[in-house]
Amino acid sequence: MPVLNLRSDFAEADTLPEQMAAIGRRARAAARRMALASARTKDGALKSIAERIRASRDEILSENARDVAAARSAGQSAALIDRLTLDPGRLAGMADAVEKVGSLADPVGRQLAAIERPNGLLIERIAVPLGVVGVIFEARPNVTADAGALCLKAGNAAILRAGSDSHRTAMAIARAMSRGLADAGLPEDAIQLVPTRDRAAVGLMLAGLDGCVDVIVPRGGRGLVERVQAEARVPVFAHLDGINHVYVAAAADLDMARTVLLNSKMRRTSVCGAAETLLVDRACAATHLAPLVHALLESGCAVRGDAETRAVDPRVTAASEEDWHTEYLDAIIAVRVVDGIEAAIEHIETYGSHHTDAIITEDDTAATRFLAEVDSAIVTHNASTQFADGGEFGFGAEIGIATGRMHARGPVGVEQLTTFKYRVHGNGQTRP
Amino acid sequence: MPVLNLRSDFAEADTLPEQMAAIGRRARAAARRMALASARTKDGALKSIAERIRASRDEILSENARDVAAARSAGQSAALIDRLTLDPGRLAGMADAVEKVGSLADPVGRQLAAIERPNGLLIERIAVPLGVVGVIFEARPNVTADAGALCLKAGNAAILRAGSDSHRTAMAIARAMSRGLADAGLPEDAIQLVPTRDRAAVGLMLAGLDGCVDVIVPRGGRGLVERVQAEARVPVFAHLDGINHVYVAAAADLDMARTVLLNSKMRRTSVCGAAETLLVDRACAATHLAPLVHALLESGCAVRGDAETRAVDPRVTAASEEDWHTEYLDAIIAVRVVDGIEAAIEHIETYGSHHTDAIITEDDTAATRFLAEVDSAIVTHNASTQFADGGEFGFGAEIGIATGRMHARGPVGVEQLTTFKYRVHGNGQTRP
Repeated sequence: MPVLNLRSDFAEADTLPEQMAAIGRRARAAARRMALASARTKDGALKSIAERIRASRDEILSENARDVAAARSAGQSAALIDRLTLDPGRLAGMADAVEKVGSLADPVGRQLAAIERPNGLLIERIAVPLGVVGVIFEARPNVTADAGALCLKAGNAAILRAGSDSHRTAMAIARAMSRGLADAGLPEDAIQLVPTRDRAAVGLMLAGLDGCVDVIVPRGGRGLVERVQAEARVPVFAHLDGINHVYVAAAADLDMARTVLLNSKMRRTSVCGAAETLLVDRACAATHLAPLVHALLESGCAVRGDAETRAVDPRVTAASEEDWHTEYLDAIIAVRVVDGIEAAIEHIETYGSHHTDAIITEDDTAATRFLAEVDSAIVTHNASTQFADGGEFGFGAEIGIATGRMHARGPVGVEQLTTFKYRVHGNGQTRP
Repeated sequence: MPVLNLRSDFAEADTLPEQMAAIGRRARAAARRMALASARTKDGALKSIAERIRASRDEILSENARDVAAARSAGQSAALIDRLTLDPGRLAGMADAVEKVGSLADPVGRQLAAIERPNGLLIERIAVPLGVVGVIFEARPNVTADAGALCLKAGNAAILRAGSDSHRTAMAIARAMSRGLADAGLPEDAIQLVPTRDRAAVGLMLAGLDGCVDVIVPRGGRGLVERVQAEARVPVFAHLDGINHVYVAAAADLDMARTVLLNSKMRRTSVCGAAETLLVDRACAATHLAPLVHALLESGCAVRGDAETRAVDPRVTAASEEDWHTEYLDAIIAVRVVDGIEAAIEHIETYGSHHTDAIITEDDTAATRFLAEVDSAIVTHNASTQFADGGEFGFGAEIGIATGRMHARGPVGVEQLTTFKYRVHGNGQTRP
């Protein structure tokens, strides 16, 4: 089993660059085989992987206990240790999630377009796998299973790089996954975990392993995403920030505005789709600003506001220029009164991060304008920003959310892990 | 008129990086306005641009005469001077081509997907412009008009960088285009030509001008594409080589094979879709190899072959390992006998450039396998490789051909110059 052998291959090889290059070559070879695997074979492999994860429960939990103990000794934060820790319930959920990916429609082989030409040529645009996906993550060991399963479903090979804290757990999960691939007759190298904690391995992945990595997906905090975006020589699917806005426009229904705002901000404050700034139109500020601010304060959210917002309640503190730029990921919101939709859009384009922005209004003309002019991956009308999620979009699962403009934008599901090729069917046509 | 002012702005500004950054900011601002332009406005602008180019005929031809004279003095090749030279006919063709782009369907605003969720949300995936497209080209001054028109049609802003030889001509064309944009009420900065020959400007574009360039399209020879691919910090739509294969499989009709092969190789030898290697299956070599080689030789094509091919005709010279890697762009072909379809696919995957590859056969099973397993942007069955062209695909025009896997692959037409966003329509939905 190559992944099991990998550790010894790795130990014997001369230098880290050579070792990583070998991982890249194995991934490329595996990707060629994966691209031809039928939906049935891939779904069978996902089922086998889920079973292998369940069967490896004791091994995975015991490796996880070692990771957790090491993280505790190293004085890591309670939040990190929570992200790192598996228990039988979380492990079962991970296996179930892998199996569920098997129930999604196969994204490979879809006919995306068909062009009949006057000369009789039929030109088809057909979805094919992207190739090799590099995933770099931090403490959450379940990314191994989640990301590996999505890459597999889309016919790709994956090179996974776990954070130092989750390394042992991720290795145990990756071993189970390779066994599941083998059970289904697919190449074990289709999911490889980089078997070293050496941080230089990340740099080599970002350089593309001699053309053997087609895209990098970072899964982790701002520091990781920033490094990946700065250094990567291959395309990246990622978002750096989710500085998301709720704009309560003129003609907003107050009850709806309150409900959608509270959900956007407070449902979970730590997710990238959480709202960070509230913009209230001057046209409805007299009636809407105070109730919205009070609702936020009563829900336990700290409010930082401009002068008009501070006038509403003494608990509101002053917002500085920096607040409009800040992704709190916490129970804090910045609030500002804006002079109409143009000012709202201008604020969002100036301070936002092109992730997810919402307008609340009963005025369809204003909504249409907002949805057209706000240049974000996701724009919502009368709906919570926290819908920014592949599952909520009906994608089944997502490998992340992208705010780049190329290839994938918004939730990255299995469809976005494919590319396409053109098949041209002729009967002897030549070009004049 | 900013583009006219540009030269003086440029001269007054302090450093090249500052000057280029200003071009980037102007492009970004123009892109925001272009993204909201209606199809009618954009098509009107294309018409105005065509008229302005026609009206500027004398100015453009006179600047072109200066470029040509300078290129002659500098001892440039006849081929380069031919690419550089405009005459009234070529200029009229350029204007007509711009106008024709206006007749294409608007790629912006297309609904690419619509998802109705159980909670009542309607999620639309809508095509929007990519943003700012950087185009770097060499001697052909008509790229200014062609690329500018395609970017405009897709609602993008363009930053164009002409080669030193075509700089004066390109400036004159760009001035006419900015006037046409102004005539239509669109921002003149939507098409900017970098007003300096300083090669450092290219490096700054490749670095992305502080996030103000979304994609780079190089239009020129291998040296340019290689530099762009090596240095670019933003996505690139390009192909480095077109090492394209014609595989004459078992069960190929000999007449069809001959016709398609000669067209693939000899219609125009200098285009990226030209065939460079012929693979003949051993199963039909006895009947097909000699007639195909003789047809090539008689059409004026030099043949370099393996031992079996050399046995066919004394004019066939020996092919070396290097030949299989070579894009001749000339009347030369490398020929090899292969042991079946698997060997053919392996040869193509080993030596090819993932551009365009063809199989000739009456066996549909073999064709299906070839089209599935050959990992090229375009795969054809019983059709010439020279169909690798946006016009031949019905795209109306193309800005180039891409062999990368991200976003665009194959001919890059106006649709591939767009990205998408999600519009979420609700009536107060919150996420549980």
